[in-house]
Amino acid sequence: MAPEQMPRKTQDEKIVTAAVLIIGNEILSGRTKDMNLGYLAEELTKLGVRLREARVVADVEGEIVAAVNDCRARYDYVFTTGGIGPTHDDITSAAVARAFGVPLILDERARAMLERNYPPGGLNEARLRMAHVPQGASLIENPVSAAPGFRMGNVFVMAGVPAIMRAMFDGVKGKLVGGRPVLSLTVSGFLGEGIIAAGLGALQQRYLDLDIGSYPFFRQGRFGASFVLRGTEQARLDAAAQELRSLIRELGAEPIEGEPAA
Amino acid sequence: MAPEQMPRKTQDEKIVTAAVLIIGNEILSGRTKDMNLGYLAEELTKLGVRLREARVVADVEGEIVAAVNDCRARYDYVFTTGGIGPTHDDITSAAVARAFGVPLILDERARAMLERNYPPGGLNEARLRMAHVPQGASLIENPVSAAPGFRMGNVFVMAGVPAIMRAMFDGVKGKLVGGRPVLSLTVSGFLGEGIIAAGLGALQQRYLDLDIGSYPFFRQGRFGASFVLRGTEQARLDAAAQELRSLIRELGAEPIEGEPAA
Repeated sequence: MAPEQMPRKTQDEKIVTAAVLIIGNEILSGRTKDMNLGYLAEELTKLGVRLREARVVADVEGEIVAAVNDCRARYDYVFTTGGIGPTHDDITSAAVARAFGVPLILDERARAMLERNYPPGGLNEARLRMAHVPQGASLIENPVSAAPGFRMGNVFVMAGVPAIMRAMFDGVKGKLVGGRPVLSLTVSGFLGEGIIAAGLGALQQRYLDLDIGSYPFFRQGRFGASFVLRGTEQARLDAAAQELRSLIRELGAEPIEGEPAA
Repeated sequence: MAPEQMPRKTQDEKIVTAAVLIIGNEILSGRTKDMNLGYLAEELTKLGVRLREARVVADVEGEIVAAVNDCRARYDYVFTTGGIGPTHDDITSAAVARAFGVPLILDERARAMLERNYPPGGLNEARLRMAHVPQGASLIENPVSAAPGFRMGNVFVMAGVPAIMRAMFDGVKGKLVGGRPVLSLTVSGFLGEGIIAAGLGALQQRYLDLDIGSYPFFRQGRFGASFVLRGTEQARLDAAAQELRSLIRELGAEPIEGEPAA
């Protein structure tokens, strides 16, 4: 490895990690197609937070408690979606309280938010459930339908309805401390993955600070693959991409920047 | 509870469970949006197999091994997607072999499938990786692009490309032993979840053999919710749905069968 190819590791390269927990039987039965994971994955990547794992968990308190406790110990941030409404199947808040070993308490600020949202007398017992959070939690505002989410330790508890989840995430993302953003660069070619695999594996070995992925496609009536280089240093991405373009040419194909049109 | 409302539990009501593991950094970075979970969730539900959990796992051998071993012990079936191609980032087969504590071996039948798929001499070392399976595995045929998946114990290892995954699943689903199919019945109403929550919770308490979910929506310019009843006995679903329709009417709304148009 030539000196100019050596990755420069600096102290500011702390890697910040996250997990997403999608809570709800409706995702596991197939009734509802999850729309939140892809969104959070993209947003976290932009913020320099590396999503390491995601789980879809049933509306079963023990399962939620186990997933929250496992993930909050392993990752810097945990984001949950779903299960914070007013009905009997909304048990996320109680489960997170149990995971942290604290009581679920009525939050007066949350109650005030809900009171402003309903006609006088409309804040019944069921709706008041949505003003309960684990003791010590801070609220996450909900500009769409009032009922707030909350942050407890490193766990961010958000709604499952995509429009509400996005509004909540917009409110918290400024408070997240990310690592260096992960940059990516894509080069594609109309050639089989099996043709380039050996050269690509050798490239990955020469650039251990990058993550090189290979994703096959069938477009314009032909097979090909996109190669995605990911890392925190633009110069390293550029150098690896240059070698990759040469490799694609050596194999008789033309390198394409980005992804070819469908 | 009147005798005619008692759930009849019979020996054939064995509950068959499953987990899905979606393997791949591209899902966690947001580059690729998963299309497999929703499909498998629906198909398993139709087969009477209850999907209890899903996880998105990075292309890291230790993570895949841990997820496979955790899930294969807890559920009747485990389905994995992704990571069985020819490139360096395709490590699912090796990870599953390690999870089972067996070597990864060349399968001669898989090699023959691949040989038929490429021009003479085209089956290079990288492509030959796709003919390696854990010792003791049986193959899952791939009618789309030849390279097979495999079944090892209760773990079904399939491709990540949706068209290939679906073709592989079509080939194995006839071999799965499901429990009694879970039936579902949906009634909706243009009323707030918070209005019906108390009555709905009481209904759930009277029908503990059913799983009653509440899913809010905003359609035709109004808020409402769909209530999904799930269980294995049609008569119980019908009885609960009748009570639910009455409840919706008592609250001043009109029950709608199924979901209202968008």
